[in-house]
Amino acid sequence: MKRVDLNTDGQLLTTINSPDDLKRLSVDQLPQLCAEIRQYLIHHLASNPGHFGSSMGAVELTVALHYVYDTPTDRLVWDVGHQAYSHKILTGRREAFASQRTLNGISGFPNPLESQYDTFMAGHASNSISAALGMAIADKNTPQNQNRKTVAVIGDASISGGLAFEGLNNASNNPNDLLIILNDNEMSIDDNVGALHRYLTEMTVSSRYNRLRDRVYRLFKRKGIISDTGKGRILRFNNSLKALISRRQNIFEGLNIRYFGPFDGHDVHKLVRILQEIKDMKGPRLLHLNTIKGYGFEAAENNPAAWHAPGKFDPETGEKIVSASKRKCMKWQDIFGNTLVKMADKNPDICAITAGMPSGTSVIKMMEKFPDRTFDVGISEGHAVTFAGGLAAGGKHPFVAIYSSFLQRSYDNIINDIAIQGLPVTICIDRAGLVGEDGVTHHGLFDLVYLRAIPNMTVASPMDAPSLRALMREAEQLKAPMAIRYPRGNAPEEPEEQEIFLPQGKSRPIYTQGDSDIAVISIGEIGNEAVKAVKYLREENINVHHYDLVYLKPLDTEMLSAVANRYKYLITIEDGIVSGGMGSSVSEYMHTLKRYPQIIKLGIADHWVHHGTVSELRKQENIDSEAIINTVKQIVANKL
Amino acid sequence: MKRVDLNTDGQLLTTINSPDDLKRLSVDQLPQLCAEIRQYLIHHLASNPGHFGSSMGAVELTVALHYVYDTPTDRLVWDVGHQAYSHKILTGRREAFASQRTLNGISGFPNPLESQYDTFMAGHASNSISAALGMAIADKNTPQNQNRKTVAVIGDASISGGLAFEGLNNASNNPNDLLIILNDNEMSIDDNVGALHRYLTEMTVSSRYNRLRDRVYRLFKRKGIISDTGKGRILRFNNSLKALISRRQNIFEGLNIRYFGPFDGHDVHKLVRILQEIKDMKGPRLLHLNTIKGYGFEAAENNPAAWHAPGKFDPETGEKIVSASKRKCMKWQDIFGNTLVKMADKNPDICAITAGMPSGTSVIKMMEKFPDRTFDVGISEGHAVTFAGGLAAGGKHPFVAIYSSFLQRSYDNIINDIAIQGLPVTICIDRAGLVGEDGVTHHGLFDLVYLRAIPNMTVASPMDAPSLRALMREAEQLKAPMAIRYPRGNAPEEPEEQEIFLPQGKSRPIYTQGDSDIAVISIGEIGNEAVKAVKYLREENINVHHYDLVYLKPLDTEMLSAVANRYKYLITIEDGIVSGGMGSSVSEYMHTLKRYPQIIKLGIADHWVHHGTVSELRKQENIDSEAIINTVKQIVANKL
Repeated sequence: MKRVDLNTDGQLLTTINSPDDLKRLSVDQLPQLCAEIRQYLIHHLASNPGHFGSSMGAVELTVALHYVYDTPTDRLVWDVGHQAYSHKILTGRREAFASQRTLNGISGFPNPLESQYDTFMAGHASNSISAALGMAIADKNTPQNQNRKTVAVIGDASISGGLAFEGLNNASNNPNDLLIILNDNEMSIDDNVGALHRYLTEMTVSSRYNRLRDRVYRLFKRKGIISDTGKGRILRFNNSLKALISRRQNIFEGLNIRYFGPFDGHDVHKLVRILQEIKDMKGPRLLHLNTIKGYGFEAAENNPAAWHAPGKFDPETGEKIVSASKRKCMKWQDIFGNTLVKMADKNPDICAITAGMPSGTSVIKMMEKFPDRTFDVGISEGHAVTFAGGLAAGGKHPFVAIYSSFLQRSYDNIINDIAIQGLPVTICIDRAGLVGEDGVTHHGLFDLVYLRAIPNMTVASPMDAPSLRALMREAEQLKAPMAIRYPRGNAPEEPEEQEIFLPQGKSRPIYTQGDSDIAVISIGEIGNEAVKAVKYLREENINVHHYDLVYLKPLDTEMLSAVANRYKYLITIEDGIVSGGMGSSVSEYMHTLKRYPQIIKLGIADHWVHHGTVSELRKQENIDSEAIINTVKQIVANKL
Repeated sequence: MKRVDLNTDGQLLTTINSPDDLKRLSVDQLPQLCAEIRQYLIHHLASNPGHFGSSMGAVELTVALHYVYDTPTDRLVWDVGHQAYSHKILTGRREAFASQRTLNGISGFPNPLESQYDTFMAGHASNSISAALGMAIADKNTPQNQNRKTVAVIGDASISGGLAFEGLNNASNNPNDLLIILNDNEMSIDDNVGALHRYLTEMTVSSRYNRLRDRVYRLFKRKGIISDTGKGRILRFNNSLKALISRRQNIFEGLNIRYFGPFDGHDVHKLVRILQEIKDMKGPRLLHLNTIKGYGFEAAENNPAAWHAPGKFDPETGEKIVSASKRKCMKWQDIFGNTLVKMADKNPDICAITAGMPSGTSVIKMMEKFPDRTFDVGISEGHAVTFAGGLAAGGKHPFVAIYSSFLQRSYDNIINDIAIQGLPVTICIDRAGLVGEDGVTHHGLFDLVYLRAIPNMTVASPMDAPSLRALMREAEQLKAPMAIRYPRGNAPEEPEEQEIFLPQGKSRPIYTQGDSDIAVISIGEIGNEAVKAVKYLREENINVHHYDLVYLKPLDTEMLSAVANRYKYLITIEDGIVSGGMGSSVSEYMHTLKRYPQIIKLGIADHWVHHGTVSELRKQENIDSEAIINTVKQIVANKL
């Protein structure tokens, strides 16, 4: 099954507590170290899940970088931390790795607050080139830092983002010696182009290539197209020749960045030699490496998409361990995906867009059923939304599924390319609210605030599966800009599929029996915490009412007016930042009504939330049923 | 002086009320029509200012497009409306053009709500390819629209944006026949590369080029590098050859988009011929045109940057008409620019970043004084902010100046690459609030809301010049993420430069003499409307107090607590959207205090604001001194 020997005793790895220790090894010991790191990764990730494939593919690269470069003086900037687990293990966090992604443990992404070896926060893709360029230019402008090196490591998926292109496009504007390493692991998915790639690798070093290049070069010189004086042009000449053969080099060619590669990213000897050779070169350079996602673990190599973040698995057999509860409930993303397929079956105008997350958003269900009406645009959230605007202008009704925190990249597109024009695009915001283990960069805490500010937007959030289906059908009818946010994980269990209706701008009472001075207003899935709390309190003979707001925008002013007259206390609860959010919106409206029930706003306070399980974080942030219960008890005890 | 004959009687243009009328002309009449359009543009823009250079350079292209394509069935998608004035004139808005950019007049940008010929809103750069691609693919998926054509027209500055790259990168993913026209007017600024370009133009059509290509092609075939079967590879082969010679083709080469050009964009005969030839071709294509910004008006050709949006000018002499008042006051952007130069003079770590707006943001002042510490990254707002994060991580203190509405493109970058990491980057938000004539896409109405939601951010706005200087110095001391927003136009007059201090989180009382039940709380420049109102009301014997909040975040809770106890009525006024903004923040805090003065929130309501002068729009939106006066009078009359 496995290619990594799990029975080595880790004799090298246990001696390495910093890159200095690593440098004491001989080059010939590095393959053994790589094997030990892989073993360590498999061992830990099998029981404490994380991102598997990317880090397995970057082991040799990481070892070679820390072996050749003088970190932390030299700076490594990892694009998306998925690749950076070995980096953490080699930089003093081997023991701490067991606590990875858990509450108060180390982060799953590079984090400068965690280690001096982590030079930049890397949760969202495509930022490494711009950030590393900033560091490299800062060094050029600082006399004592002239010899400091900066290396950005970016994957082939991340480089498709517009931000990465903007970085590449600016890389040669100012003097700098930035090295960009393209960690290209696409090869394992798309075997068709593998032969071409290997051919190019040969070409780069072979004398045959050099002879050919010389011949074409002389021909062009005779024709007066190039001259010996134009150094830049000679570089472009080499690049052009390579571009001719490989379809991979489509992005950085011609941007005046020296190109090297592609080379085998799993040959640690060769990597060390190449890095030593190009380390001291001047000017921006790009080194193209071919790696295999999940390298060394057969199951992962064979199915890289499924092993990107596999969850728990058996390290010996590669079999995934699915917990019983997971089998029973349905994920929010699947309710979305299934519903969309059903709707698309009846409405030929419906189409789906994902920005590189067909599995994560379950857009893959549409892809399987309606491939012509489903678009995976790769990591490019801005394009995803503007492209949806174009489809809508062309008469279609696109549903764009994007994770909440990544949708922050589409803010201007939502405003200009959807909302101002009133186009019928439905934005389905997955992973809204606290996401758990992925932590601070991945929580979707701002969407309610920044979408509420946009005129023309309808903003809603379902509490359960029937609500999500109802909101999607409402969006179809509405034919106007609308956002529907739902969290990561499973929706509350639904014994049988029921159909409900949630008309635009209407809330729904969840529990309003008997008398009460206190009402909870919730929006979205977090409302189930209120259900729990209300039930618990009832058992303690405290009667509290509960409304599901459903729509943050337009506000249900009718309900709020009634509520303003009926209750002395309103507890609002939302799975997002409080400043400007749902509770804020309720307090705004109460001022408009000139009615002043006391409002206690539960939600994320003005601070960053790191990683842990969702329930740990909800407890920590005071947005669970217990928080509601405690608030009510304080009210009853006259302490609020 | 001028190259366009201003004395033609416009005999052709006056007959054209739609593209159908245009099609009745012979090709030989088109140059005359182009001259008449230029005359019309010069005549109108001399007295009713707008964007001059871009539209002057796109006259022939516009005429040729409407001559060859069947608009509005065929769709033209203009990237940034600057180029689209001739388009408006030819599509039934010749007479209406005089009302352009004025209150209730036509928009300065394409607007689908205004005309069926305007297919997409185009205020922010770089969106045309993504939007047009959406339309082209929608047509491919709609049986009755198989013959509908879509053309995106994008400038060479816009194509540097990440969104445009994302569009290009996705253009060949799905079957479509999109034509992208690159309107490249850089030539007039950068003469160095002109010769190379002209050479390439020759190459494209000359038999010499074809012979050379054949020869290299045969050589490569013999070597087994390419084969006749690989159609895609032959295309790349052609592109590679061209890339070798021109440094302009660095973006679309290799992205599997057929490339044509560059051609002279001012030869209308040739343009018609080329468009006819490539109109019915299949698959995505890019046509590269060289144009001259301001073509036909010598002053503009000679100084394209100054004539991008020149204001009023003499159509005969090309001399700009500067109003007396403009000479006297100082622009906000210049106060920023001058202050930054002074600060940078003392602090070598300070540097400046602009995203393609060195003149508009006055970063040009830094550029002149400290070229090594000033970075113009072109239209790429995301990169600008992340790059700033990198510079800050490298020990520098960058000041990034971006227009408020464009900063919407950097939202995720501000969160991830600045705020989470607590990096010392100061974001100087120019053109915040209502910007006037540029209208709905350009108002900076959301920044207060979306920045307030971000933990760690300090968000401030100066009421006058001394305040802006004070806030910039505070940012320097703070060494933490901070945003300072100021509007377009002139700051209130300052008889002599004074130095004040505005420590973080502290408001300042503007007028608190005598007794009053009513206080105005303002933030930013709009506070001067409150000063006017308070003065006027005092003359009417109504005493109203006034506080300048200065910092939206952190809130001055001490002041607000005092205010909560002292006044019955609070009037908040802000130059931004009300939902979630400053007034909302005050009402949130009052609920926390459990104090309930009545709060009347003046600001932009939940709707889109179009164009007009800033004072017209402030009046319309109820955020001027009159609105405050009326509110106070209603309070006094017991009507509120």
